[in-house]
Amino acid sequence: MYKLYDFPLSGNCYKVRLLLTQLDILFERVEVNILQQETKLPDFLQKNPNSKVPVLEIESGTFLTESNSILLYLADATPLLPEAKLDRAQVMQWLFFEQFSLGANLSRPRFWISIAKQADKFAPIIEYHQRQGNAALQVMEQHLADRQFFVNQQYTIADIALYSYTHMATEGGYDMSQYPNIEIWCERVRSQPQHVSITAI
Amino acid sequence: MYKLYDFPLSGNCYKVRLLLTQLDILFERVEVNILQQETKLPDFLQKNPNSKVPVLEIESGTFLTESNSILLYLADATPLLPEAKLDRAQVMQWLFFEQFSLGANLSRPRFWISIAKQADKFAPIIEYHQRQGNAALQVMEQHLADRQFFVNQQYTIADIALYSYTHMATEGGYDMSQYPNIEIWCERVRSQPQHVSITAI
Repeated sequence: MYKLYDFPLSGNCYKVRLLLTQLDILFERVEVNILQQETKLPDFLQKNPNSKVPVLEIESGTFLTESNSILLYLADATPLLPEAKLDRAQVMQWLFFEQFSLGANLSRPRFWISIAKQADKFAPIIEYHQRQGNAALQVMEQHLADRQFFVNQQYTIADIALYSYTHMATEGGYDMSQYPNIEIWCERVRSQPQHVSITAI
Repeated sequence: MYKLYDFPLSGNCYKVRLLLTQLDILFERVEVNILQQETKLPDFLQKNPNSKVPVLEIESGTFLTESNSILLYLADATPLLPEAKLDRAQVMQWLFFEQFSLGANLSRPRFWISIAKQADKFAPIIEYHQRQGNAALQVMEQHLADRQFFVNQQYTIADIALYSYTHMATEGGYDMSQYPNIEIWCERVRSQPQHVSITAI
């Protein structure tokens, strides 16, 4: 059985839990507490030298890291990752967009504002990320103007990856009322079969 | 023929030029000058609403964005992207690592120090990125301690993606003498058949 090294509050971990659930794949959770620096312990660094969750142990001693790489691995040959070469390339495109333009810009303000509660101390860095995060959200808003989902009008791992931090962007100080298409798409993602929320563990 | 919307100084564009050259694929370059804000012009935003190069036009009106997604598209079914599922997942893993943990942390200090020459003005942001960039370089240094290349002891697009900004990290103020394994690996990448430098256009 897959073993997921997991932290409940992490959006990157949530992506993987959501996909595993929607694919009906049983998994064992091993909780790794980021707030207590558990990703920096020698035993964890053996699994991921980059000191990040999630990590998926696919068989004893074989570890996959990077949430979107795990999504691609799990979704291969399922309806959540299209077969056609161009559709697949567009899924990849959004997965890289998510990691480069969106993820940290949403997750770090959320961490400092709502988790560590040190918004004042980190105000310049929060603002630096929010400026880039709003630009990324604007790209998504525009893309969704005439689309149900991000790629090929079907629910894919691109939607799962993008939903993860976007649906809790307000925790990072984002005003989501600026993005009505994103709000409707979030509802659409939540209405997919076997959807689970980030708190359902 | 593929058309590459390209800016010579961009490491993300360089990745794609290097791969196209090593795969013997002819392409036409269309220069888009980031420094003159040409990625913000309406005509370019039609190609990539995220306002970034590279963009690969694979046929008239069909555009691929995100450098690593373009690498995956081009390298599919070539020796530069392994077939085996786990090897392929590990290539993906390093491609996402490159975009999340390495790329911007190397490219933004390089931009402010060596291109815009505004190191003083952006000192706190440069330091913020350098701290994360050094952590990522440390992960790579350790990985290369007993390996020739990043995945499966063969040269793949993971090496191309990681090489791109790493080989010019000193332009972003990084002290690469701390990373001897990376320095040797950079030499190894440069010795691959049909290697071209970032300035060879």
